[in-house]
Amino acid sequence: MTFNTPLHYRPLSADALPVYLAGIPALRERLGGEPGDWTVREVSDGYLNLVYLVNGPKGALCSKQSLPHVREDKNWPLPLDRTACEYLYWKTIGPYVEGLIPAIYHYDPELSLVAMELLAPHQVLRGRIIAGETYPGVGRRVADFVARSTFFTSDLYQKQEFKAELIANFKSNHVLHRIMLELVYQDPFIEIERNHWTTPHLDAFVTEFRVSGRIRAAAGRLGQKFLTSPQALIHNDLHAGAVMLTADDVRIIDPEFSTFGPIGVDLGIFIGHLLISYFAQDGYATPSDDRQAQQSWLLQEISEFWVAFRSKFLRLWRDHASGDAFLARGFDDPTGRAVMEAERERFIHGLFADALGFAATAIIRSIIGYAHFAELESIEDLDRKGAAEAGALSLARSLLLHPEQFATIADVLDEAPRHRRAPGSLFQP
Amino acid sequence: MTFNTPLHYRPLSADALPVYLAGIPALRERLGGEPGDWTVREVSDGYLNLVYLVNGPKGALCSKQSLPHVREDKNWPLPLDRTACEYLYWKTIGPYVEGLIPAIYHYDPELSLVAMELLAPHQVLRGRIIAGETYPGVGRRVADFVARSTFFTSDLYQKQEFKAELIANFKSNHVLHRIMLELVYQDPFIEIERNHWTTPHLDAFVTEFRVSGRIRAAAGRLGQKFLTSPQALIHNDLHAGAVMLTADDVRIIDPEFSTFGPIGVDLGIFIGHLLISYFAQDGYATPSDDRQAQQSWLLQEISEFWVAFRSKFLRLWRDHASGDAFLARGFDDPTGRAVMEAERERFIHGLFADALGFAATAIIRSIIGYAHFAELESIEDLDRKGAAEAGALSLARSLLLHPEQFATIADVLDEAPRHRRAPGSLFQP
Repeated sequence: MTFNTPLHYRPLSADALPVYLAGIPALRERLGGEPGDWTVREVSDGYLNLVYLVNGPKGALCSKQSLPHVREDKNWPLPLDRTACEYLYWKTIGPYVEGLIPAIYHYDPELSLVAMELLAPHQVLRGRIIAGETYPGVGRRVADFVARSTFFTSDLYQKQEFKAELIANFKSNHVLHRIMLELVYQDPFIEIERNHWTTPHLDAFVTEFRVSGRIRAAAGRLGQKFLTSPQALIHNDLHAGAVMLTADDVRIIDPEFSTFGPIGVDLGIFIGHLLISYFAQDGYATPSDDRQAQQSWLLQEISEFWVAFRSKFLRLWRDHASGDAFLARGFDDPTGRAVMEAERERFIHGLFADALGFAATAIIRSIIGYAHFAELESIEDLDRKGAAEAGALSLARSLLLHPEQFATIADVLDEAPRHRRAPGSLFQP
Repeated sequence: MTFNTPLHYRPLSADALPVYLAGIPALRERLGGEPGDWTVREVSDGYLNLVYLVNGPKGALCSKQSLPHVREDKNWPLPLDRTACEYLYWKTIGPYVEGLIPAIYHYDPELSLVAMELLAPHQVLRGRIIAGETYPGVGRRVADFVARSTFFTSDLYQKQEFKAELIANFKSNHVLHRIMLELVYQDPFIEIERNHWTTPHLDAFVTEFRVSGRIRAAAGRLGQKFLTSPQALIHNDLHAGAVMLTADDVRIIDPEFSTFGPIGVDLGIFIGHLLISYFAQDGYATPSDDRQAQQSWLLQEISEFWVAFRSKFLRLWRDHASGDAFLARGFDDPTGRAVMEAERERFIHGLFADALGFAATAIIRSIIGYAHFAELESIEDLDRKGAAEAGALSLARSLLLHPEQFATIADVLDEAPRHRRAPGSLFQP
């Protein structure tokens, strides 16, 4: 498979980038001085892009350019128009999430390049968690982002024409949507070559996920929901690598997988990756730092994330019910207000159930699928890595098999510690 | 609001149509002879189109052209591109519903005109029901249509790319989608001028639908589902006026409202309109024809419609599970096949619940909303008309308020007769 590439597309090297930036007056002005004064540092990470940080005498920016293939695998082509979708996502949610995303300076459709605010001294949440740090409050801020970005793009706030137009535009991102569909909802439950895992430690888990009818059915239902529930514009890849922060600022980045989908996907991916980190800490504990404080913090953030999301989303809906779903005019009386309050609770309850399911699939795909993440990959001792992964998989398994046991977020946090495994064995589900 | 009209668009009169048709060799050939030999008969019906039947010495055709406004109201503009969506619907489902739709001969995007098979001696089901006739088997044939057209356009059969492309194309039909959204899911539950009903007979019903919190909430949920559940390509207006038939042939027509949506919409509209007809017969009964045999037939068709749909849809899914939802490869073993059978039952159960809800909104909007239908409008005696309508509304009310009482289609049929009302009073819900 190949994809169309714009005529003038070329990946910009660190040397070529200043020449390009200098040709765009607003960016040249922002950086200040002459291109020769600018420093360019490549920080490409992830699977899909060239990323450079550019500093000038006066200002700075971050340049993110799509590559026409997976960064580490030129034989896996990727369409460039995902950048158009990233930009469209920023433009669409921008008015509603001020201060929670980077400022966007420039978009070049020919080069599939976005120039945006260089977030400094922000760091990626994932690395900070691995380093053993804590950031009290990050859960509440990410919750604010998810509540705003999804509510304001949902049928609870918008008219159907808005959504129809956007859904049509996000269609061009179908290759990335297929990647997400396959990597998360299909691959981990079948035998397919690109899957890999810590072996032999997790072999029994892998087997169970391919054999258990109930687990496969639950994952199948989540995949079907992913395909058929365009509740809102979702980020769709909201793990700890998509969160940059300082002690008092949080920004969400990297929405190239964004699409219309179930709100529970954004909730679940974020919760799932905090749970992964919770189990991962057992792989990093040392005699001088048992990581227990950090583990408590991680569980606390999960709780605050859900509680804050719930509260914020409900408040937005109460205050801004201008959408086509549950037309406000039809409920503008005491009885109507009472039933709408009940409807909102019912809707949020559905999001919670969805979130736990999508948290489980996020965990599973990160451990036994194709794309793994540094939270676990950085644990050097294989036995300890396998034990951390077995703990996370064991909890994910419970979330899929026994959703009725998880009525509140407290149930999840109570249950998580019970799934920790001691290193040094093959793990049974 | 105005919409773009193609440069060369003009509504064709009965005189202008032969000139146009003669310019299209395939159509000229089909009709045979010279344009002067052709007879043109206008049969425009419904709200939106110019429809002509054209007969020539050799063959015949039906010409359907969109008008840029509601047929009876030039101040209600309508976009012409709905014809493109109608044509796209035919093209998309055509391969799967052979023999159940008219053959399509010609599509002219400039004139928003489709020329198709002239269905003769077919008649519109609605008129035949009003006339007191019965057509045993129509339910099963329409069920076959709904099962095929929805299964083969769903994520159970298709890949997501197919659906994303089509959804983007059907976006241009958003004006008709808004009409449907407002007329069915919003208007009947608020005070709005275009609503009308048999008064004073139904006043108490109208008040209750605007006051009852539970009814409004149930209707709101159905509207939300209509907006956020693109399960398959649906006809979206599958009432008895969209069914043409003879004793042994059934064809579905008029898909201009088609869109991606919940499969239950097509099921529910068809069931709802048969239920309307069931109650309407009390308005047509005479001493010499009590219409009881026809009423029994209508209930029987509802039952056969559901049973046949259920069986056909399950069979298609078992035999053609090539879609992205529930990837077949993940369930290709005895356990997998067993859980998929359970998933299919679960899915069908959801469709049944949806169908009853959408049947209820179809009934309500047809009696107290803007657009009414001849099944009830043709009852001359207002007291008898009101009684028939009250019966239908009463059943619809139960379907929304007590869905738990309707576990099977037999429950619906058992319950329907209990809602019949005797003429001659104001009706209480």
